[in-house]
Amino acid sequence: MPLATLRGVCQVEFQNNVWTALLFLLALLLGGWRFAVFALIGALVTTVTAWVLGVARDRLTIGLEGFNGTLIGVAVALFFEMGWVALMLVIAASVLGAVVTAALTVLLAPYDVPALTAPFCVVTSLMMIGGPAFARIWDARLPPAPATAEPTAALSYTDVWQGLLNGIGQVFFQDKWYAGLVFLIGLLVASRVAAIAAVAGSAIGIVVAVILGAPATDIGAGLYGYNSVLTAIALAGVFVALTPYGVLYAVLGAVASVFVTAGVAALFRPVGGPALTWPFVLVTWTFLAAVPMFSKIRRPS
Amino acid sequence: MPLATLRGVCQVEFQNNVWTALLFLLALLLGGWRFAVFALIGALVTTVTAWVLGVARDRLTIGLEGFNGTLIGVAVALFFEMGWVALMLVIAASVLGAVVTAALTVLLAPYDVPALTAPFCVVTSLMMIGGPAFARIWDARLPPAPATAEPTAALSYTDVWQGLLNGIGQVFFQDKWYAGLVFLIGLLVASRVAAIAAVAGSAIGIVVAVILGAPATDIGAGLYGYNSVLTAIALAGVFVALTPYGVLYAVLGAVASVFVTAGVAALFRPVGGPALTWPFVLVTWTFLAAVPMFSKIRRPS
Amino acid sequence: MPLATLRGVCQVEFQNNVWTALLFLLALLLGGWRFAVFALIGALVTTVTAWVLGVARDRLTIGLEGFNGTLIGVAVALFFEMGWVALMLVIAASVLGAVVTAALTVLLAPYDVPALTAPFCVVTSLMMIGGPAFARIWDARLPPAPATAEPTAALSYTDVWQGLLNGIGQVFFQDKWYAGLVFLIGLLVASRVAAIAAVAGSAIGIVVAVILGAPATDIGAGLYGYNSVLTAIALAGVFVALTPYGVLYAVLGAVASVFVTAGVAALFRPVGGPALTWPFVLVTWTFLAAVPMFSKIRRPS
Repeated sequence: MPLATLRGVCQVEFQNNVWTALLFLLALLLGGWRFAVFALIGALVTTVTAWVLGVARDRLTIGLEGFNGTLIGVAVALFFEMGWVALMLVIAASVLGAVVTAALTVLLAPYDVPALTAPFCVVTSLMMIGGPAFARIWDARLPPAPATAEPTAALSYTDVWQGLLNGIGQVFFQDKWYAGLVFLIGLLVASRVAAIAAVAGSAIGIVVAVILGAPATDIGAGLYGYNSVLTAIALAGVFVALTPYGVLYAVLGAVASVFVTAGVAALFRPVGGPALTWPFVLVTWTFLAAVPMFSKIRRPS
Repeated sequence: MPLATLRGVCQVEFQNNVWTALLFLLALLLGGWRFAVFALIGALVTTVTAWVLGVARDRLTIGLEGFNGTLIGVAVALFFEMGWVALMLVIAASVLGAVVTAALTVLLAPYDVPALTAPFCVVTSLMMIGGPAFARIWDARLPPAPATAEPTAALSYTDVWQGLLNGIGQVFFQDKWYAGLVFLIGLLVASRVAAIAAVAGSAIGIVVAVILGAPATDIGAGLYGYNSVLTAIALAGVFVALTPYGVLYAVLGAVASVFVTAGVAALFRPVGGPALTWPFVLVTWTFLAAVPMFSKIRRPS
Repeated sequence: MPLATLRGVCQVEFQNNVWTALLFLLALLLGGWRFAVFALIGALVTTVTAWVLGVARDRLTIGLEGFNGTLIGVAVALFFEMGWVALMLVIAASVLGAVVTAALTVLLAPYDVPALTAPFCVVTSLMMIGGPAFARIWDARLPPAPATAEPTAALSYTDVWQGLLNGIGQVFFQDKWYAGLVFLIGLLVASRVAAIAAVAGSAIGIVVAVILGAPATDIGAGLYGYNSVLTAIALAGVFVALTPYGVLYAVLGAVASVFVTAGVAALFRPVGGPALTWPFVLVTWTFLAAVPMFSKIRRPS
């Protein structure tokens, strides 16, 4: 169970390697102890819930039942102040996350499409959109981080290289470039292809956002990168075979993620929810569901 | 056909018992004659539409084609003043409801998940969200009920016991405690398990809402209870086998319904639609779709 | 490839006839050269993308991979000023549209339901909702057309006959009655049934909107007609057998499209997206998915 929980931390980026998990935890610690602790609580609660309800052992041991709990934990640590309410929230949300994981796994099985981080997105969106109805939850919210700079169209060199690493860190809501660097090293330990895909995905996010004229502060914070990072890793070798056409497909997916990031953010704005990794989920589901129509693209054998 | 229509009234809560249907109608009469009359019109129109288009006879006779029409009728009677517009609306909405019922039944069949009250939710949400575009519909709207009390955080004993019964009555949009009591008696006539699940679901809704700090007036009106009532009945014995794990699963579902109620209400607020029984539908679909992954939970044999 | 692209223009209304395609292009030219040129670019890009990724040849040659690109092209020409940004947008959106087409085709295959114009709706909604995030895209937007008249409830004879033809033209975003007339002639060349269904659908849209009290200017512009036009063509002979019950079913679908048009428009208003042909897609998906439940309705042999 402890190993399954730990593997749940690195399965967020489709890896199954204990060293990677430890490096990811170190990166979370750089952001603050609460991120690391809540990530472990979330992964533990979803894994235990799945175990109690009788999920097949092989899914549990490789961390497939834990990674949505990991992200739920990090999100609670980001949006709420540490205390009983946050602890109650992470437990309730992670239990629910385990059921949503099972439901999506069944619903998507006929198409051979995985649930990805959708259970995390469903539960966290619910928490942020429904939260204001409950005084005890909403009073425990942290004030949103103050904007560190005026929105500006002029992109500095610092925006670019920090944005490149922040795009990797933002997968776990981290906005410090050195945290992103540790995540990247963690990926590298598990898979060179995944590490290259992560950097390429983050770079694609920045380039497309610059061409389209997104605000420089958003680009520097990695907000247009993290969904492209996840889409690139998922489509480059993990769920699609690593052929020349497969790489082209992954690049298309990473580009599409930038557009979808803007669309999802605008959709959620009237109800006050963050975009989370919905763009990655929607783009990767679409690109994976489409595979059977494309003879040049195939699943890994 | 008259019996099928009548059974459509009690199938709202998954029962197939004429006495229960008559008691449910009595409870609606306590709220006003228009609720009972429109419930019957709605059930009749969806059942006749399904019959004309050739739905299998066994679905018709047990009322499975009528219960969404029942709720559509009650909703029209609640939101619109009695007259030609309301009559036209309930007929048009119920005809459409019959087609939506068929479509969802087909779409969900591979997962062995029923349509539940989703057709009612789809059609009624459409009516309330699209309605303002049409002067003739919107002019016939009833003014929203005045708030009977200031929103307050202090929960009285009256809020609790009335909320318990109102949670059962709100399944049919009824907010008088004695109407809720008659619904409960109707359930008891058909199934002791369903009656216990209804009371437990309503109680869970109140307890969770109190812990989370929801407004006392909403709790007293049963607004945090009715989705938990339906989820509890559906998961306790109707669509999930009544084992110890099954009961735990139903409790989880009832708790989740409270969170989802707040989320759905917030999502619909910008477009002016009520939450209806969407939370029950979404939670129960999720929990039923997840069953094949959980070896400890099984469908009733 | 040129023929496949051309066929992509007329497949918007389910036709596979080169003369029809040429007449549709003529109708677009009446609205402005940019509509015709961008329609061809869109159809070409989606068709080429599908061909590069290896879609089956028989889908390509009859234009099934092109018609969503056609509509994407027309939408870009409508909402953005001609220039490099518009060209970049139509290419990016059409490439993405080809992947969405493949994904929806796979997802809907178990239910024998086609993707219809949903890929166009997905990609164009994304463009309009996410667009404001990107200065370079949003600066290239055309100012919305000024209202030609005050909204008024009094419907003139001109509103009615122009609305009838505009309902047909609005399928391609055209609001000139003579453009609608050329589209109608194009349909007539390919199929008398489709032409009759188009006129009947447009008429149903007007009648229902008038009865419900929609603004006369919207009715005259064909805004309540074009979804009914598409639904009527799709359900009358194309995807449902042309029997007496089938015709009744198509009429029901055309009526439902009017309600859903109002609902979708209201849903999209908070995020600033147009309704596009979402109402047609949602209604036709529902009515086609429902067919297996209805013994009186059947698919064409």
